Amino acid sequence: MVQKSTSTAGLRGQVAGETALCTVGVTGSGLTYCGYDVSDLAANATFEEVAYLLQFGQLPSQDELDRFHQALKAQRALPQALCEILERIPKSAHPMDVMRTGCSALGVLQQENDFSEQDDHIINMLAKFPAIMTYWYHFHFNGKKIETGSNADSIAEHFLELLTQSSPSELHVQALQASLILYAEHEFNASTFAARVAASTLTDIYSAVTAAIGTLRGPLHGGANEAAMALISSFNDPADAEQGLMAMLSAKDKIMGFGHAVYRTSDPRSIVIKEWAKRIGEEVGNMNLYNISEQCEKVMWREKELFPNADFYHASTYHHMGIPTDLFTPIFVMSRVSGWAAHIKEQRANNRIIRPSADYIGEEPRVYTPITDR
Amino acid sequence: MVQKSTSTAGLRGQVAGETALCTVGVTGSGLTYCGYDVSDLAANATFEEVAYLLQFGQLPSQDELDRFHQALKAQRALPQALCEILERIPKSAHPMDVMRTGCSALGVLQQENDFSEQDDHIINMLAKFPAIMTYWYHFHFNGKKIETGSNADSIAEHFLELLTQSSPSELHVQALQASLILYAEHEFNASTFAARVAASTLTDIYSAVTAAIGTLRGPLHGGANEAAMALISSFNDPADAEQGLMAMLSAKDKIMGFGHAVYRTSDPRSIVIKEWAKRIGEEVGNMNLYNISEQCEKVMWREKELFPNADFYHASTYHHMGIPTDLFTPIFVMSRVSGWAAHIKEQRANNRIIRPSADYIGEEPRVYTPITDR
Repeated sequence: MVQKSTSTAGLRGQVAGETALCTVGVTGSGLTYCGYDVSDLAANATFEEVAYLLQFGQLPSQDELDRFHQALKAQRALPQALCEILERIPKSAHPMDVMRTGCSALGVLQQENDFSEQDDHIINMLAKFPAIMTYWYHFHFNGKKIETGSNADSIAEHFLELLTQSSPSELHVQALQASLILYAEHEFNASTFAARVAASTLTDIYSAVTAAIGTLRGPLHGGANEAAMALISSFNDPADAEQGLMAMLSAKDKIMGFGHAVYRTSDPRSIVIKEWAKRIGEEVGNMNLYNISEQCEKVMWREKELFPNADFYHASTYHHMGIPTDLFTPIFVMSRVSGWAAHIKEQRANNRIIRPSADYIGEEPRVYTPITDR
Repeated sequence: MVQKSTSTAGLRGQVAGETALCTVGVTGSGLTYCGYDVSDLAANATFEEVAYLLQFGQLPSQDELDRFHQALKAQRALPQALCEILERIPKSAHPMDVMRTGCSALGVLQQENDFSEQDDHIINMLAKFPAIMTYWYHFHFNGKKIETGSNADSIAEHFLELLTQSSPSELHVQALQASLILYAEHEFNASTFAARVAASTLTDIYSAVTAAIGTLRGPLHGGANEAAMALISSFNDPADAEQGLMAMLSAKDKIMGFGHAVYRTSDPRSIVIKEWAKRIGEEVGNMNLYNISEQCEKVMWREKELFPNADFYHASTYHHMGIPTDLFTPIFVMSRVSGWAAHIKEQRANNRIIRPSADYIGEEPRVYTPITDR
């Protein structure tokens, strides 16, 4: 009974639910979180304000924000059993596998027993994800068991302090704040949709976020900022980038960090992070990677009318902040967990199990034959 | 810009892709795997034959089956680091969290580096999932570090041997074989769909299976066999079941283990497992739970025209085989991983990233206000 397919591959353009969290590309290029333009948020807000906005639908008052910061600070330190599990994940591991396993293990050590606890567990993940990554990293790469608590004012500062084991500059904290805001939320992308499918069975929040991390890990989703770093660092200077990129284009190589499935003319996030790439390059007194990036942008627009997406200018920004390339996508996780969590809450508040149909394209009915007759 | 929703909640009835693996309820009650009726398979095949069928589309020859068995046997023993991680998951953990974390940790210790390795990793999960559950279980409940390898002929025998630490009877092995076949595959159910969403980003197979485990964990999906056990063991005898169930129905309590989202008149899996429930009851010389189950079936049909689904008669079957109730859903995982894996292979073979759209029901564009003005 082979039937002709009536499906649209990848559910592209098909509505799979409702959300009050985000609009993507409604006017062709915009991105809003709960009605606020992402550029406004990146210019004016902290990541904590944005995470609060996504969870509760309103920007916090000073009192609410203070309490949110206090709750986050109180949850930073990892339980000893989680440290011991991270020590048993080898140095050769994919950092996204560390995040996936660390999140799953956190959910087993500190279970969500009831949905009434969900906001506490969201704080728990926001607070602990920086330490999950950096504890594993320092243990295996520097032979050091780091302290996972800290008095840093923000998640951005906390992460940079754990990573570099020193106080980060105010400029670096601001740049990472902006970056975390840009990555926080993006409607029904694949990882968020995976989180909602999981949440629709009324599973616990760690299961849904673990599903999202494993989904983001795929090269068609996360990882474009790491690929962009590989690209720009393969060129010596802008002239080399011009020549090398033209050669890649004529060889029809895949160029990561350009174009987008939804945006048509530009990615609003790229404009923000490009400005930060410039400021951070100026701060370290090395504009070469920035200039190479700009040359790539020119070539891709001239030759393909493709624009840089959120990931492209993140590469030189993170690199000059001293962040190892392998940790770029885990930072995406530390940010996007705010969006995933908000979608899980939204799914729970108006739930129906997500269970689509499939077109059958397989064998006609067959009769079982004993193994001796095969 | 609040728009009216055009979505069907939960994608119910919407085609989200193609499959050659399974038909569910095409004639109103049937279930086929690759064209074979599930009742034929449960009566005649082993779980290994069915797992092979799902991975390769054909029932194996004797040679192919022998090699499949050999490969499975060779992969049973858990790596030491995985044992040490399972020791750090507390006794109070939800067993599905143990499976989720164990699968994720397995994927970090034995990474899938390339899709060409996928069949080896599927064997790895089929081989090791019984030991992941039972190693954790014996360590925390019996203070014992069990051997995780074995010479058992089948996955069913291996699991029962690890669980009971003795050779299981042939009847118990056959019953578990049938049960594993019944749970192996069920088209685009929520956990399988979550695995396909994850796989569509081209992530590794452990990420996709971890996502599926976390999704199956939800009470709207897995766990109905555990709930059925709680129901039938709350009654003393069939007369008590008649009275108690009638009271629950008039109180409009939710009764688990009856009815199905797709099947309309009966669940073909229930007919098979009911027969096994009877045989196992007769073997242990205690028909009380079976008789209670039959009485529940009669009441539910008489009062609600609801039939038992795959989960209901699993309860007394597993119970009389000496399986603790908390491990019922993890057995579902040991079986369904064969279906998840087959869907992941199918998704990879003809992939487009699964990225649907959402109807926006949120705030109109808002202007950011400084925190001092809120």
